[in-house]
This record gives sequence, C-alpha cells and structure tokens, in this order.
Amino acid sequence: MSSDTFRIGLLGHGTVGGAFAQLLPSRAGQIAHTTGMRPEIVGTLTRSKGDFEDILRQADLVVEVMGGTDPARDYVLRAMRAGKHVVTANKQLLAQHGEELWACARENGVQLRFEAAVAGVVPVIRVLQESLAAAHVDRVHGIVNGTTNYILSQMAATGASYADALADAQRLGYAESDPTDDVTGRDAAAKMAILARLAFDTPVHLDQVPYEGIEHITADDLAYARDLNLGLKLIGTAERVNGKLSVRVHPAFLYAGHPLASVHGPYNAVTLESEAITEITMSGPGAGGPQTASAVLGDVISAMIPPASTPATSQQLEIADDVESAFYLHLEVADRPGVLAQVAQILGMQGASIKSVIQTGLGEKARLTMVVHPLLESRFFAARDLIARLDFVRSTPRAIRVIEEEYS
Amino acid sequence: MSSDTFRIGLLGHGTVGGAFAQLLPSRAGQIAHTTGMRPEIVGTLTRSKGDFEDILRQADLVVEVMGGTDPARDYVLRAMRAGKHVVTANKQLLAQHGEELWACARENGVQLRFEAAVAGVVPVIRVLQESLAAAHVDRVHGIVNGTTNYILSQMAATGASYADALADAQRLGYAESDPTDDVTGRDAAAKMAILARLAFDTPVHLDQVPYEGIEHITADDLAYARDLNLGLKLIGTAERVNGKLSVRVHPAFLYAGHPLASVHGPYNAVTLESEAITEITMSGPGAGGPQTASAVLGDVISAMIPPASTPATSQQLEIADDVESAFYLHLEVADRPGVLAQVAQILGMQGASIKSVIQTGLGEKARLTMVVHPLLESRFFAARDLIARLDFVRSTPRAIRVIEEEYS
Repeated sequence: MSSDTFRIGLLGHGTVGGAFAQLLPSRAGQIAHTTGMRPEIVGTLTRSKGDFEDILRQADLVVEVMGGTDPARDYVLRAMRAGKHVVTANKQLLAQHGEELWACARENGVQLRFEAAVAGVVPVIRVLQESLAAAHVDRVHGIVNGTTNYILSQMAATGASYADALADAQRLGYAESDPTDDVTGRDAAAKMAILARLAFDTPVHLDQVPYEGIEHITADDLAYARDLNLGLKLIGTAERVNGKLSVRVHPAFLYAGHPLASVHGPYNAVTLESEAITEITMSGPGAGGPQTASAVLGDVISAMIPPASTPATSQQLEIADDVESAFYLHLEVADRPGVLAQVAQILGMQGASIKSVIQTGLGEKARLTMVVHPLLESRFFAARDLIARLDFVRSTPRAIRVIEEEYS
Repeated sequence: MSSDTFRIGLLGHGTVGGAFAQLLPSRAGQIAHTTGMRPEIVGTLTRSKGDFEDILRQADLVVEVMGGTDPARDYVLRAMRAGKHVVTANKQLLAQHGEELWACARENGVQLRFEAAVAGVVPVIRVLQESLAAAHVDRVHGIVNGTTNYILSQMAATGASYADALADAQRLGYAESDPTDDVTGRDAAAKMAILARLAFDTPVHLDQVPYEGIEHITADDLAYARDLNLGLKLIGTAERVNGKLSVRVHPAFLYAGHPLASVHGPYNAVTLESEAITEITMSGPGAGGPQTASAVLGDVISAMIPPASTPATSQQLEIADDVESAFYLHLEVADRPGVLAQVAQILGMQGASIKSVIQTGLGEKARLTMVVHPLLESRFFAARDLIARLDFVRSTPRAIRVIEEEYS
C-alpha cells in the first residue's frame, strides 16, 4: 500500500496540542495502513513561534487547538478559504461563530470537524451527524462538563462543601485555577449550543442558552435529596417544547435509575432521545489532554479516509485458549470444623486466593459463597473439580465468573 | 438543492425490513436536504415475491435484512460484484463469512456497512471504525444480547426462576419462541466475533469464540451474590492477553459501580477500553424492528453522503423562553400547625402539586424538603417567592430542578 504523506498544520501547543503531537507518531503506521497516507505535522504555531501563512502553504489539514475566538476564528476561516480541511476542539468558537464557519466550509468544499469540542472522547458529534442524520431527535440530555461533575460527585460522596470540593478538583487538575467558565455553567452552555444545532437543525448561539452553575449548591441539599432517591448533576438540556427549542444548563436532580445518574467523577455523558431509537447513552472521560487529542485524531483520520470500507487485517493476533478470571463459587456443605480451611487449601494449591466469603446455615445444610481473585480458568476449574469430590460437599459446586474491577 | 433519487433494493421484509420500509418515507425529505438525493425503495425481495436480478439492476444500494447465511451470502456477494453498496443487519453472515465479504467490498470499491448487526442502535461499529480507527484498543466488554439481559434483570429484580423469566420475555416479545441462539450465548458470540475483528484488526470466526449461556443460572446465585455487591450479566469480552486475542462470552458478575452494571432490561451496552481514551461506554435498546431499522437507515445515509459537512439549517425552531420542570424545594420553617398546608396552598395556586415531602425537626427549627411535579418554571418561581415571604419561613427557600423520569 502506498504511503504518501498527509500534512498537518498544528495551531496551538498547550495541553491538547502537546498530547496530539505526541500521539500522532505512535499511530502513524496504523493510519497509513488504513488510509494509504502517513500523517505528519509539518508546522506548529504557538504564541511565540511559527508562521501561520507558512503552515497554511504546507498543510493538507489544519488542527486548531489554540482555544478562544481571536485569532482562532480568523485562522480557521483563512484555512478553509485556502481549501484546507480543519479539525478543531474549540467549543467557544463554534458556539459563537458556528454558522459563519460551517457556511465557509460548505462554500469551499472542505471538512470542518469538531468531535473534540464536546464531551471529549465521547463520540456524540459523529453519532448526531451520521448515525442519527435523519432521526427526529426529541431531546438531548448531557453531563458535558467534567469539572462540575467531579465536584458534585465529591460533595455527594464525602459531604464536602462546594469550596472544599473545588479546591480538591484544582489540586487534582480537574479544575483550572480560574474555574469560572466551568462552575458557572458557561462551558456547558457552549457545548449544548453546538449539540442543539446538530440535533435540531437550528442555529443556536451561546447567548441563547441560559445557564446556572453549581456555586450555590450545598452539601445539605445533596444529603436531604438522597432521602428522596435523588442525585445531583449539572445537566445540559436541548429539547422540543411545543414546537420551540429550549436549550439550557442548570443543576438538576435525577432519580437513581436515570442513565446519567451513575456517571460519577470527571466523566461526561450524553443521552439522545428519539421515538425511533428510544435512547442512546454514551459516556467517557470528558477532558484531559490525551483523551481530547484522541478525539482530534479520530477527526483527522475521518478527513483522510475515502468512504468507509473494512481494511484487510495487518496484524494478526493469535487466539488465546486460557485466560485469567475471578470467580464466584457457591458450595452447599456440611458444617464441620475445617471445611473452609480445606476448600481454601485446594484453591490455594491452584493459586486461587479468596477475596470475600459468606458462610451461612448450620449442621448438614450450610452454604459457602465466595469470590476468588483472578487466576487462569483452567486452574480454577481444576480446583473446583477437586472441591466437588470432598466428602462434606453436598451439591455440585456452582462457579460464575466475576469481572473484578471495582468502580467508585 | 437537487433531489435525484437514490434507489434502494430491499432483501427481506420481516420485522426489520418492514420497519425500514415504514421509516424511510417519513425521513426521505430530511435526507434529501442533507444529501441532495431522495432515497426510495425500488424493489423488495421476500420469500414469496420479487426477483433478485431485477432488484439488482435497479438499485444503487442493497439492504440485506433477510438473516441467515444462505442465500444472504450469495446475494450480498453478487450485489457488491455488481458495484452496489450493501447495508446489512446480518451478524451470522459477518461472523462466519466476514473476511470474504470485506475483501469483496474492497475489490469492488463498494461500501459494506453493518452497524445494525451489533447492538442495535448503539453505534459501536461506527465508533470502532471511525473515532477509534487508530486507537490501540485493549479491551471490549459488551452486553450484546437484549434477551438474556432482560431475563437476568427479571431474575434479579423479582427472584423469578430462569424458566419463568424466559416465559415472561417470550410473552413480551423480548425472546423468540425458539430462544436457543440467545440463551446459549451463540448470538452474542457472533457479535463479539465482529467487534473483535474491528477492534483488534484480526480475523475472528464464530467458531473461535467459546460461549456459555444463562440456562443454568439460578435465582439463588443472584440473591447470594447480591450480598457480595455483585450483579450478573451475560458478558462478551474481547481483549489482548499476553499478545494473544481472547474472545469469549459467558455469564459474569460485575461490581455495582461497573459501567455495565446499571444496564437493565432488554438493553445493550459496550465498553471500549484503550490507554489513550480510558474508556467509552455506549448503551441503548439492543433490538426491536424500529431501532434496528434506524441503524440500517443511518448506514444508508452514510453510504449516500460525501465527506461530512454540516448542512445549512432547513428548519428553524423558535427558541423557547419558559419550560416546565419538576422541582426540589428546601424550606427551613417554624413547625406550627398548618405550615405544610399553607405551603401546599401557594404551590397549588400556581398549579404545582407535591409529589413527595419529608418533614423533620421540631419547634422553631423544622425542615421541609419536597419534590413537586412539573410546572412552568415561571409559575414555580412565583410560588417560591410567595412562600419566602411567609412569616414561619426561617431561611431563603432553596429550589433545584428535578429530571422526573423514573427508571427501573
């Protein structure tokens, strides 16, 4: 397969730009296999270095990750007028100048892609533009700001005050030193303007999205509301209301079973509702340099590839025949001294260690249920078969695998 | 904008085919706006009617929703050799003959799309092929069979036996009269073979995917495991294990916070893990005629459109300025006779009815927290401002919106 160079101009070299510059070389080989072209950064513009005109001349595609609207707007417009595709992660730019930019892309026959502008790696832009291109979307609900979701999760989990949870988020890098855009809801409002534009085919400017933040939420409210089976999230909503469109951001309580209620920490999630599909919920990390860079790279590849086909395989992994797993094990036993010790000994001989065990019942009708830490399945089954033959075991042991990761 | 016809040949007119034939006309106008072409079904092949050669001559694209591998394989190959794009929902076909079909598509320069073959409307194929085209995926975990997820959810929620939960699923249309493919895990194995092929760039045949079903699960195990904080799902896994690929399907327990643990009922969900992105989880209805037809239509549109641009808006909704919402209301009050009655009366005058209320404390330091059913926000705020002026109210009332849908 040929391997021509696909030339990328990079505008901005902060957290996202730096992560993108690091990610690209490590994936270039795979991309060349998929697309027939090897992507390469041919010029980078930072505040202190680089020349935009020079980058523009060389590039097939421009990645804009500088943020802000000025000079980003000017650069993006000039790149598209010069016939270059643009991939941007800039939500403020699109929420304030989207119609101008999209029109410019159409007029110049270039692609303007912006998956990374909303919800990090969660591919909500692609799904709205492609999977649901002809769906009649009724409502979009989103947790589209990871900073506030982390703060609210902390307040709910620990009873911390808003101020303490914010300080905690700043210490961990989930909040910036000036968190105003995040905690006031303005960042989420920009993202909801973009989602609403795509879902409802209606121009929405940031100024048309009323927003409320989380600065006035008290840990008390979170505690009281838990008694009502409610958890608090900063929710962006875009929905049809009597033939009009409402787009807004505010804190809102959700009942425990809501698809967004289980989204904790610095995560983002979006639920798309439509009569034809019921609903799709997507979740993942909302920000972070590597994650946003990965979303940018997905857009770059999409701009490079001809209409989708499934490429021939390049690597070929061997298929594994034995893997490790944790197990749940259920035993009916006669409750004599040393029963658990014997079971544990057989498990231990096969390398299985017990994570938790519950023993109930007495005499001839006792029950042991336990979870053992991961080991090769073949070894666990060998232990199970030995245990089945112990004279105090009263029924066929029942074993079920356990996915062991614990999440908060 | 021009509106040429895009001609679709439909192979199969069962649940999915019928739903597709119904969905297409209702969305054709929007699709014509987006793509410049109006899609239309020019011929349908059923068991008793229609001529394949005739359909092939007329069609630009063939939709295959007949199921099974014979004669579907032959038809799909012939369509692609004739230069037609193909959209299929046929998981068995791809899990058994995928490499042959994908090679045929590449050789003939046509698209073979199959979003609907795995996880219904959950756009996991698109995300693997596009968003994560160059990501190094480490693991895929999926609940990819809605029938078994419904049965396990019912067993866990009601303590029903496997047989009773299966009968219940059949009565509700979530399970077929012959449920073998679903309950044995074979259906999920076919889907995991397809996901593994895309995620790990390695050919995987259905025969290489060991699977276990849920037929031997007892309600007892679900109850005992709950004490260990575990919930049971039928999990498909594809992962790198020491440089090999393991693809398998079996029942597995998950701890409560796992992204797949909260997926209940006839839903599907897939978690994609990669170092660069951490993880993405997507969930939605796993089957159903309208949902699968919607996924098929998404693929049809993708085959029609030139590389993505954001079209000019065609409709333009008015932006709404007042919407309905349910509210949480927190009041600190002096606990005198008639306090709750006066609050309820003011709410009632604005059309707000109380859904639940918790009253705690005594004397001068009592607390009322309540949830009121949805009403126009302007009316709720009017009531709140009146309540704030009552002489027994001791603090500024705190109001937070509630997303009212309750999920099981």
